[in-house]
Amino acid sequence: MFSRLTFHHTRNLGRRLVHSKRTVLSGIQPTGVPHLGNYLGALSNWVKLQETSNPHDDLLFMIVGWHALTLPQDPKELAASRWDMLATLLAIGLDPKRSIIFHQDHNQDHLELGWLMNCLSPVGKLFRMTTWKSRIATSRNAEESDVDESLLNAGLLTYPSLQAADILVYRATHVPVGEDQTQHLELTRDLAEAFNRTFKSDCPLFPLPTQVDTPTRRILSLKDPTAKMSKSAPDVRSRILLTDTPSQIQTKIRGAVTDTILGVTYDPNKRPGAANLLNILAACTNEDVGVVAARYESKGHKELKNDVAEAVIELLRNPQEEFARIREERVYLVQVADDGARKAKELSNETMRHVRDRLGLC
Amino acid sequence: MFSRLTFHHTRNLGRRLVHSKRTVLSGIQPTGVPHLGNYLGALSNWVKLQETSNPHDDLLFMIVGWHALTLPQDPKELAASRWDMLATLLAIGLDPKRSIIFHQDHNQDHLELGWLMNCLSPVGKLFRMTTWKSRIATSRNAEESDVDESLLNAGLLTYPSLQAADILVYRATHVPVGEDQTQHLELTRDLAEAFNRTFKSDCPLFPLPTQVDTPTRRILSLKDPTAKMSKSAPDVRSRILLTDTPSQIQTKIRGAVTDTILGVTYDPNKRPGAANLLNILAACTNEDVGVVAARYESKGHKELKNDVAEAVIELLRNPQEEFARIREERVYLVQVADDGARKAKELSNETMRHVRDRLGLC
Repeated sequence: MFSRLTFHHTRNLGRRLVHSKRTVLSGIQPTGVPHLGNYLGALSNWVKLQETSNPHDDLLFMIVGWHALTLPQDPKELAASRWDMLATLLAIGLDPKRSIIFHQDHNQDHLELGWLMNCLSPVGKLFRMTTWKSRIATSRNAEESDVDESLLNAGLLTYPSLQAADILVYRATHVPVGEDQTQHLELTRDLAEAFNRTFKSDCPLFPLPTQVDTPTRRILSLKDPTAKMSKSAPDVRSRILLTDTPSQIQTKIRGAVTDTILGVTYDPNKRPGAANLLNILAACTNEDVGVVAARYESKGHKELKNDVAEAVIELLRNPQEEFARIREERVYLVQVADDGARKAKELSNETMRHVRDRLGLC
Repeated sequence: MFSRLTFHHTRNLGRRLVHSKRTVLSGIQPTGVPHLGNYLGALSNWVKLQETSNPHDDLLFMIVGWHALTLPQDPKELAASRWDMLATLLAIGLDPKRSIIFHQDHNQDHLELGWLMNCLSPVGKLFRMTTWKSRIATSRNAEESDVDESLLNAGLLTYPSLQAADILVYRATHVPVGEDQTQHLELTRDLAEAFNRTFKSDCPLFPLPTQVDTPTRRILSLKDPTAKMSKSAPDVRSRILLTDTPSQIQTKIRGAVTDTILGVTYDPNKRPGAANLLNILAACTNEDVGVVAARYESKGHKELKNDVAEAVIELLRNPQEEFARIREERVYLVQVADDGARKAKELSNETMRHVRDRLGLC
């Protein structure tokens, strides 16, 4: 899906067929045990990416502890969540022998490049990013229109500069992230270009990273199918967690809000509850949602819910078992995190040597 | 001058006389070869501080490369300036066996704590700091009233958060800086209190640092005695550099702007040129400026200028020789910088262990 063949011309060697090496990077907040929306929306794509990558591609997946600090955190919960998220990444099938799996907050190179990105970022441009408003709104259960600058801290304002550094410090070429990150990735490319232009050398230091469009499925709340499934929603029945038992999953799916129209059709606007269940089922069975919907045209919500519950239970069975096992293996987790940080630093140290050299910090 | 005796009461030991350990920290931008204003205004005070400190005090003096990046820099000049500033600190008498002399940009712990300080800093508060306006104005040779937010980058906006981290990462208790830094030091104390309050433990992690009032002498331009002596002023005759020869010093002092009033009196408002020369002389001879002025009441500007030139030549003789010698010893300078960074990291690593533990990044 992502491999590229590039033809390079060189005077001496003639035309050569070269597989261009990719560096793929993505990150996730340490929210602890993920829910079905996280799993189907981002994490399962990472595993697919790992499976479809070329052997010489670098793959980096990180847990972004420093970004988490931009909103208030309970320290004990944060500490537990960082390890639970690492256990999750391993449980769903990311392989630390193939991918570099690490904690962002184990590699200070991100912050050094982040500082430089700050120095290249006009404050007005950061204010125009829309994510800080939505992050504050979500954290306060408020509307974005109720959010103003008085609630904004400098970490949240400069979050996109640090995110640009997260990507550029590994000279990543491909970044699989959701649509809500498009604006940040554009800023990343702008900053990469600004650096390449300002601190010239034989060749530009930073490639301009491409956003990888993954078949993300926007999984909605089971209780309010106009909102995304979310860890922070007050009603625990609105989400399915990776640690839920089969009977909890059944109860939550059976209690999902749908509508009173007879039969099942896929209409995300008018029938968001049913559409959400069809999306979940299609994701579990790896089918097109239209194909799935056709099967339920003459059936009822009850039958759909039974099948969704069964499919989710089946989908999560293996990751759940793995998660329960790996979560307890703290020594192994520490070793994976240390190895990941070491490998990540090998790559970023090389970038930072070039950066410091071009800046005159040498 | 700075030593304090503190009486501690303990139930078991009765009343004990304890010298409280101080951690003194200050920083200077890598502006390269300093001028007389830098020397008399800040650097010579650092040497006095070193001489008057208690043996168990920690003294840290740093060259702040990351702060320099908040305004455009020529990479080649910056690289040379970083080493010239280090050579200067050694030439004027800072002793790397007694003081920790280091490059800020060799210790990434500053940036990690700086990120946390950003997360605790309301953006509105940073906007109300006045230094970013004056720094932009100085760099563009413009009035502060001509400076608006469109010229502001996120590095310059968050400069005070990083400066707070520079101080707090060593849990510094005493910070000798000029009056223009009072607002930043207040922010530093606010951030230290915010951290101590938010991330409680057995005891507060950060002491609230005190601004050390040093007898700073504001040395003015020799060509425009209403402005500070400055490296960026277009007229090179307005400043005396540490690398100026005796004859250059004589020429510049003789060409200093004074006034046509007969006799010499100390009146900084009405006679700023003469007052500046008297201040320089008083600083060189370590006398009160009133005492010096009295000696010249019945003399002319010419005699004053001759004596000022002689005193400055004498004051700079030894630092100049040392600077010329040390500047060429690159291996030694690298070793001093490496040693300084190692010692600084020993202190900051300890602070960051506590910080991460309290935040939940562990």
